[in-house]
Amino acid sequence: MRVALLGMGSVGRGVLQMIGEKDLGITVTAVADSRSALIDRDGISIEEVLAAKARNGFCGDKAISAMDVVTGSAYDVLVEVTPTNATTGEPALTHMLCALERGRHVVTSNKGPISREFSRLREIAVEKGIQLRYEATVGGAIPIMHTLEQGLAGNRVLAIFGVLNGTCNFILTRMAAEGLTYEQALLEAREMGYAEADPTYDVKGIDPAIKLVILANTFCSHSVSLEDVDITGIDRLTNDALRLAEEQQCTIRLIAEAIPDRGILRVAPRLLPLSHPLVVEGTLNAITIETDMAGEITLIGKGAGSVETASAIIGDLLYIRDTHAGRHSKTA
Amino acid sequence: MRVALLGMGSVGRGVLQMIGEKDLGITVTAVADSRSALIDRDGISIEEVLAAKARNGFCGDKAISAMDVVTGSAYDVLVEVTPTNATTGEPALTHMLCALERGRHVVTSNKGPISREFSRLREIAVEKGIQLRYEATVGGAIPIMHTLEQGLAGNRVLAIFGVLNGTCNFILTRMAAEGLTYEQALLEAREMGYAEADPTYDVKGIDPAIKLVILANTFCSHSVSLEDVDITGIDRLTNDALRLAEEQQCTIRLIAEAIPDRGILRVAPRLLPLSHPLVVEGTLNAITIETDMAGEITLIGKGAGSVETASAIIGDLLYIRDTHAGRHSKTA
Repeated sequence: MRVALLGMGSVGRGVLQMIGEKDLGITVTAVADSRSALIDRDGISIEEVLAAKARNGFCGDKAISAMDVVTGSAYDVLVEVTPTNATTGEPALTHMLCALERGRHVVTSNKGPISREFSRLREIAVEKGIQLRYEATVGGAIPIMHTLEQGLAGNRVLAIFGVLNGTCNFILTRMAAEGLTYEQALLEAREMGYAEADPTYDVKGIDPAIKLVILANTFCSHSVSLEDVDITGIDRLTNDALRLAEEQQCTIRLIAEAIPDRGILRVAPRLLPLSHPLVVEGTLNAITIETDMAGEITLIGKGAGSVETASAIIGDLLYIRDTHAGRHSKTA
Repeated sequence: MRVALLGMGSVGRGVLQMIGEKDLGITVTAVADSRSALIDRDGISIEEVLAAKARNGFCGDKAISAMDVVTGSAYDVLVEVTPTNATTGEPALTHMLCALERGRHVVTSNKGPISREFSRLREIAVEKGIQLRYEATVGGAIPIMHTLEQGLAGNRVLAIFGVLNGTCNFILTRMAAEGLTYEQALLEAREMGYAEADPTYDVKGIDPAIKLVILANTFCSHSVSLEDVDITGIDRLTNDALRLAEEQQCTIRLIAEAIPDRGILRVAPRLLPLSHPLVVEGTLNAITIETDMAGEITLIGKGAGSVETASAIIGDLLYIRDTHAGRHSKTA
């Protein structure tokens, strides 16, 4: 299976590294960063590309662009992990649309295009009979898409509850554990590299709301967008609130919830008993799915990280490899 | 896809009911219980079979046997959910061997044959190019096999830790919560229908050890058997031990663990911090998988139940349907 990879940030490098280290039957025939690209239909040298990127910041030839890779190179699957403009979803959206129109599978960690243009992207994929996969957009290393899609196949999803933002969860964990104020905990999150210089996107609950939209569109069979989500962030939480929660053997977590039958699509701080499965610590993510047959299933795992995100992308790549090559699975 | 179902206990009836209620593209062409069977290559009436079974205890014709179904009826997948002799794995083992030899896929919830004769069964399945699936043997409704096999594809499994027995977990939960003795908690588990008249199989840790063998054989790439597991049950635990644990913000859970690189294959009561993801309540099951890329992933869900087990079996059936018919998945 031939893969073209766009984006040489930490996720892209993680994917390349794992493809290089593991025997997965995957050949990388093209890579691109924002300023250069490398195309070799016989397979590029992953080691050399990673070394070049580390040495001078370019992965290839400055005369070749990411769009040249998308439209002109030979690949079966496009892996789209470029940095994306959150408002427009570009340039990832255009890359993905072009690849799909060419009849190529797409695997991405880019939330923007998937949350904003899901119907359009899915329509093309269905029409062309190819796959659009985006496990890495939600829950980091947690294979929530595969678990719902294959593991819980045949189930109806009644509700989704999730701790989908590691930054917020870290802040809430530290406020509860150490009695820190929101501002103190945010500062600590910044120092640890868990919060960005402008933390708005996380602490206002926008990032988990986008992930909720992706889950709802995929598993709750009606089309929703970010504007449909009722969002409250964690930036006005006091440690008095957390202290009161603790007195009742509870704590507060930022919960994203979708309950389609009740029209609920919401991100808000919620009081949970300490023994609740969604009460995870630090930057962990957790998702509970309520289904008609399996009941409640909870998944917990790392919400971010280069190799962790690569795990999700590689899971998607191998699923395409196995379902489109007709090969059999490990338990067969 | 045509399915023949053997076993009309609570799991078998749950599977039939769900196939009847949901539009899954599955036709049931034969059913059998221990004393009768019904074969109709155009599809049996699920409603009538369930009614007949409820009315007189037979699902069909006493002149036809389960083996007649296995060897003589028309089906693509055999669902084997008969009651099994724990020592011999029969009659399920013979049913499964015959179906596999006929080149038919097999889906089962029967731990006996899978834990005892895994290599032999897998060998035939691989040779015939068909699938042997057994999601329902471990963790009830938790889709652990699919999550590992598809969701975490490409990952190496470094360790498996699991709360795999709901009876033991219920007893430990009640001992900790109410200060009950082991005997009192066992009595309560019996009254609630969570423990059998002879609870040996559960409380001595044999049941979780069998499940551990199944997980290790499937995901840790070396062949092990029940004799290789170092087993300690919960039947000698005192509530003093639980009280001491509580004083350290900990509790005790019966943990099944496989760490292949260290040669560890063990079931034993373990001290865990109360905030640990494997500290689940009541009859819940939980499994943590440690992998090279995704890190630690934990799954929590119901460990038993008719419809919950049916969910696992239907997940396997739909996986066979989708991978063998070349259809595309929901996210495509």
